[in-house]
Amino acid sequence: MKKLNVAMIGYQFMGRAHSNAWRQVGRFFDTPAEAVMKVVCGRNADGVEMAAAKLGWEESATSWEDVVARPDIDAIDICTPGDAHMPIAIAAAKAGKAILCEKPLANTLEEAEKMLAAAQQSGVPHMLCHNYRRAPAVALAKRMIDEGRIGRLHHYRGTYLQDWIVDPDFPRVWRLEKAKAGSGALGDIGSHSLDLARHLVGEITEVSGLLETFIGERPLPEGGGTGKVDVDDAALALVRFQNGAIGSIEGTRFAPGRKNYNRFEINGSKGSLAFDLERMNELQVYEENGPDSGFRTVLATDAAHPYVEAWWPPGHVLGYEHTFTHTVLDFLRSVDGGTTVTPNFEDGVANQRALDAIERSASSRRWESV
Amino acid sequence: MKKLNVAMIGYQFMGRAHSNAWRQVGRFFDTPAEAVMKVVCGRNADGVEMAAAKLGWEESATSWEDVVARPDIDAIDICTPGDAHMPIAIAAAKAGKAILCEKPLANTLEEAEKMLAAAQQSGVPHMLCHNYRRAPAVALAKRMIDEGRIGRLHHYRGTYLQDWIVDPDFPRVWRLEKAKAGSGALGDIGSHSLDLARHLVGEITEVSGLLETFIGERPLPEGGGTGKVDVDDAALALVRFQNGAIGSIEGTRFAPGRKNYNRFEINGSKGSLAFDLERMNELQVYEENGPDSGFRTVLATDAAHPYVEAWWPPGHVLGYEHTFTHTVLDFLRSVDGGTTVTPNFEDGVANQRALDAIERSASSRRWESV
Amino acid sequence: MKKLNVAMIGYQFMGRAHSNAWRQVGRFFDTPAEAVMKVVCGRNADGVEMAAAKLGWEESATSWEDVVARPDIDAIDICTPGDAHMPIAIAAAKAGKAILCEKPLANTLEEAEKMLAAAQQSGVPHMLCHNYRRAPAVALAKRMIDEGRIGRLHHYRGTYLQDWIVDPDFPRVWRLEKAKAGSGALGDIGSHSLDLARHLVGEITEVSGLLETFIGERPLPEGGGTGKVDVDDAALALVRFQNGAIGSIEGTRFAPGRKNYNRFEINGSKGSLAFDLERMNELQVYEENGPDSGFRTVLATDAAHPYVEAWWPPGHVLGYEHTFTHTVLDFLRSVDGGTTVTPNFEDGVANQRALDAIERSASSRRWESV
Amino acid sequence: MKKLNVAMIGYQFMGRAHSNAWRQVGRFFDTPAEAVMKVVCGRNADGVEMAAAKLGWEESATSWEDVVARPDIDAIDICTPGDAHMPIAIAAAKAGKAILCEKPLANTLEEAEKMLAAAQQSGVPHMLCHNYRRAPAVALAKRMIDEGRIGRLHHYRGTYLQDWIVDPDFPRVWRLEKAKAGSGALGDIGSHSLDLARHLVGEITEVSGLLETFIGERPLPEGGGTGKVDVDDAALALVRFQNGAIGSIEGTRFAPGRKNYNRFEINGSKGSLAFDLERMNELQVYEENGPDSGFRTVLATDAAHPYVEAWWPPGHVLGYEHTFTHTVLDFLRSVDGGTTVTPNFEDGVANQRALDAIERSASSRRWESV
Repeated sequence: MKKLNVAMIGYQFMGRAHSNAWRQVGRFFDTPAEAVMKVVCGRNADGVEMAAAKLGWEESATSWEDVVARPDIDAIDICTPGDAHMPIAIAAAKAGKAILCEKPLANTLEEAEKMLAAAQQSGVPHMLCHNYRRAPAVALAKRMIDEGRIGRLHHYRGTYLQDWIVDPDFPRVWRLEKAKAGSGALGDIGSHSLDLARHLVGEITEVSGLLETFIGERPLPEGGGTGKVDVDDAALALVRFQNGAIGSIEGTRFAPGRKNYNRFEINGSKGSLAFDLERMNELQVYEENGPDSGFRTVLATDAAHPYVEAWWPPGHVLGYEHTFTHTVLDFLRSVDGGTTVTPNFEDGVANQRALDAIERSASSRRWESV
Repeated sequence: MKKLNVAMIGYQFMGRAHSNAWRQVGRFFDTPAEAVMKVVCGRNADGVEMAAAKLGWEESATSWEDVVARPDIDAIDICTPGDAHMPIAIAAAKAGKAILCEKPLANTLEEAEKMLAAAQQSGVPHMLCHNYRRAPAVALAKRMIDEGRIGRLHHYRGTYLQDWIVDPDFPRVWRLEKAKAGSGALGDIGSHSLDLARHLVGEITEVSGLLETFIGERPLPEGGGTGKVDVDDAALALVRFQNGAIGSIEGTRFAPGRKNYNRFEINGSKGSLAFDLERMNELQVYEENGPDSGFRTVLATDAAHPYVEAWWPPGHVLGYEHTFTHTVLDFLRSVDGGTTVTPNFEDGVANQRALDAIERSASSRRWESV
Repeated sequence: MKKLNVAMIGYQFMGRAHSNAWRQVGRFFDTPAEAVMKVVCGRNADGVEMAAAKLGWEESATSWEDVVARPDIDAIDICTPGDAHMPIAIAAAKAGKAILCEKPLANTLEEAEKMLAAAQQSGVPHMLCHNYRRAPAVALAKRMIDEGRIGRLHHYRGTYLQDWIVDPDFPRVWRLEKAKAGSGALGDIGSHSLDLARHLVGEITEVSGLLETFIGERPLPEGGGTGKVDVDDAALALVRFQNGAIGSIEGTRFAPGRKNYNRFEINGSKGSLAFDLERMNELQVYEENGPDSGFRTVLATDAAHPYVEAWWPPGHVLGYEHTFTHTVLDFLRSVDGGTTVTPNFEDGVANQRALDAIERSASSRRWESV
Repeated sequence: MKKLNVAMIGYQFMGRAHSNAWRQVGRFFDTPAEAVMKVVCGRNADGVEMAAAKLGWEESATSWEDVVARPDIDAIDICTPGDAHMPIAIAAAKAGKAILCEKPLANTLEEAEKMLAAAQQSGVPHMLCHNYRRAPAVALAKRMIDEGRIGRLHHYRGTYLQDWIVDPDFPRVWRLEKAKAGSGALGDIGSHSLDLARHLVGEITEVSGLLETFIGERPLPEGGGTGKVDVDDAALALVRFQNGAIGSIEGTRFAPGRKNYNRFEINGSKGSLAFDLERMNELQVYEENGPDSGFRTVLATDAAHPYVEAWWPPGHVLGYEHTFTHTVLDFLRSVDGGTTVTPNFEDGVANQRALDAIERSASSRRWESV
């Protein structure tokens, strides 16, 4: 079998999830090429060496520039915080590597556009990791919509709720700093809602946004006083889609009891769909069929459901981690086949444009075009 | 026992629900006065006579002016479409009658303000029937919030979803005519979401609204061609509350499978609450208490829950209709005690101001103050 | 309209529920005869007089023998504890009255058989009030089964769980005395599970039963020491049906958090049905139709659903009380039409036979024929 | 790090699941020894060679006798159908290997007892893979019970429902042959319900069982006529526990829509617990605490929950497969520490005794002691 030599930059939460995907994909799926986990790269030599051993990479490295330049590397998987995405991606593109990049593509629209331009110029394969598109239940939703089973789409209602910073004593971590994280709930989780909106409903043309920071000052994680929170704690937006649908998008870290509540509901002329990541193996489906109709819980664990054939018998649920396994599977297929895969950097730019419009609207206090 | 002679104007859907409440309230609750169902009034003599017999009113009448003028009548219950609320209420106020009025208070803010002024000038008791405030589970939510169990409020998420006009062949009934209904989903169901928002969270200061009519032309109910739909099929708004909370409100008649899905979720600093009218005996409660916390389903059927003591043992659920029974109970108490009850015409005006701001915002395409 | 003069014996919990049904049935349904609430009867003169006023009966009385003998009375509604059912029913039968009797028909099989014999001899209309058959969602389940939509039936799984006597300090009330109550959880709530089993699946031929009393001694309600609990706290049975289906039935008062959890699940060759009284407006329906199948929640509030047309629009839920309203509706129709209605005294005897077999089996420790 | 050389016998469904667990355990947990996947063994040389490559074993082999005899092998993982468990386990015990054996321990009680005796005689570590004990939500249930949060236990209600053989045209596969499978739903899935009952509630002392085969003849999988089904399609039992609790256990393959519905509910004097494998990351918990109590959904994905610390942040769910990962983790710890782990062969014998008593009772038609 052909081999694809992969290097991963960054090894924290996302790095762990991506590593798992690279290790597992070939164990369950028939991949066109074998993903070889060549090298993981991080700034801390000891940390990255331990990560390599634990996560299954052959080597570790501390300079991403060197890694990107290695001729034996075929693909770069970018798992760093958002502020480092652009330089790595541009270098990787110039070096002719296939690129898989964690979301959001970049911290700003400008950066995202540069990344896309670089990838297009070099003609390298590029993919953005919005992993939730590849939960089988979400992929099933997409299939049903594409088959017209829901009819003409009227409504999208997306909320991504978490609760990890409700406590005012929770420290001012890097995700609460604009310089590093770009934005708060908007870019971190609202962007998932937005990506699913674009994936399932279509392009967004205009938005009315609201950003709010409930707690403006928090203890510094390293101790010694407090620091300013300059990102949003919560982000809401009304949106209009090109196809006439309307909707709302929300991300917040201030919803006690909602741990990872990435929920959407879509209403069409013939039915409705609803999904909640906390029950990620289920899709709620309503198809209008007279008075005995009702929302049904489709357990998306049947061999006929997207990606499921490779796994277990019906009713044996999958975990969060395999949204990444399915992502790298499609990345491998795309690289091998020379075909376009979505979401890619174009989607990253489109998402960033919408996020940017939400920020502009929150500031201008009026509807803004995307 | 004292008696309160009641006259009801209008006898359609709301008239049936109110009649039931008047008949039942004294059968279960110890009311301060006996409600005597004196007369029901409607324009069609035969229809109203039959309604009187079926619904339990002593007499029927066709002129509301005459009814309001009757010296033996103590209270007027207004159940007509919104365009008739103002003249009846003002006449009733001038005649010194206690007034219970169906929501929305009026079709326009101007009308609502005139009604409030009339009631205040005459000093008559006045109440607005936003019945869902008095579902036991909603009243329990209010109690929990007032007791501080949810903490400082951050988020309100209100949606009222129905699906009865998704079919483009559904006729252009009066509820789809601006002249009669005032507005569409906004005033009919969005106003419930809004009223619960004000009741549970607090005053709304500004809004960004979106109104949409998906199907602009429909068959006339009487046949013979089509007519224009000049009200909204769906209404959405982002809102800011005086107390710093933020939220969203939505009403739509285009959500297949959602029959009467009046849902809200409230997130505070210490917990969360969620309610869905289709499961109106349940309140979802989250109180943060370490890793074994979770949303729990409180079946609001315990004698200790608001209004429940008068009914059945725990686990024996109540129906929709008794949100009205509880409303007239509190109306009777208010009239008897000379005390203010909420929601009243002031709330009606406040609601109307918010609805008006949403309409203005949908048109100006920017945030508008309430 | 014709009139049916009704007398009710007993006015506690069941008396309140029946009274409500008698008052309400004509307000919503077109009944063939008007039910006139003539007289309510109880042993305590003051109590029953107050009850008459509160519940809407024209008169009160203290001697059921006198009431049953009154020539102006057409129907007797028996709402007393089980030990008084037989004498009243037999006297009523002899007096030629139509009889509606609360469940269980009697405290023993022997009593039940005598009641049935008396009713048959006199040829009077007779009905047993197993009200849950007439929750719209249950009636919908019955319709679906009868239409063959679930196919050949294989499994019935019935549990009726409550929690009101888990606390060992809960007093030894009459329901815990065999002399008055006949049995404990078995006859009180297990009998509902059993009746639904017979209604929905078919006749039971043999059973293996288990009865358990967890707390054998409790404080007397009147104070002054403790008294023996000589009924079951929990009752379980395996059952075999004539049609080849198998199942289980359970009633317990020791299930914390289950307030009125009368649940069943039925599995047939083509689908499954599930119902829970705590969500009594919903029927869970599974119809096998390929990999996208799933249990759907049918909100049994559509005009096309049994009994619903008389009530409110879709999504406006009904309460517990109207299972009785629908029962008296069908009683009125049966009396007027001279037709048989079910469940009736024959069902009462059949139920009692099955309960009796469970008791015998619990004692013999082997399967017993019904 | 120390190494533990593992050989796995059998490579079908369970072999895939166990292989995954061996591969993954060290990637997430700090194991006391590194599990080295030395050799996988199966009868078909080509099949097992392909399996070795796909599943990550260093070598493949076709003679389990040879594999068990290899001095470099430390542990034998038995994943064959039940009829082969005994010879392999006894040989492994004699060879001094640690043994992990899939459930049920054996096809008959006699075999199970021989396996236990062999393991005890040799003093080798032994473990039975009843993987569902190690779903975090189940382990959390166990912890809560052990901490006394549910109080004295009164009820266990276990059902394991599937639907894969409802269609009469489904072929007579090996699982429907007594000679190979030992029993049908009873041993395959009822045994899971039983094991959880023993794990969570305690030892079972007596049972009343019912076995049923709905479809006695099915097409042969290889074509050419039909074959007899001589195992049960469904198995039910009432059970009594040593500690006074009572319960029921059920396994069926005839429940349309239930794909892998391994559900239990436990009622104690202070609360209740409920679990459903189709939502395996959730535990339903009721703790009695006044009228605002309710069943709450604990999402068992917090670092404080059993096994979860090694995985993802709260709200990121785990899949079915990791019930095995946690099993091999505890097997590794047990082997390394020389400590007993449960469930082990003693539990296997105890389970088999209970299954045997159910079969005896189904035949004798009376209660049987375990």
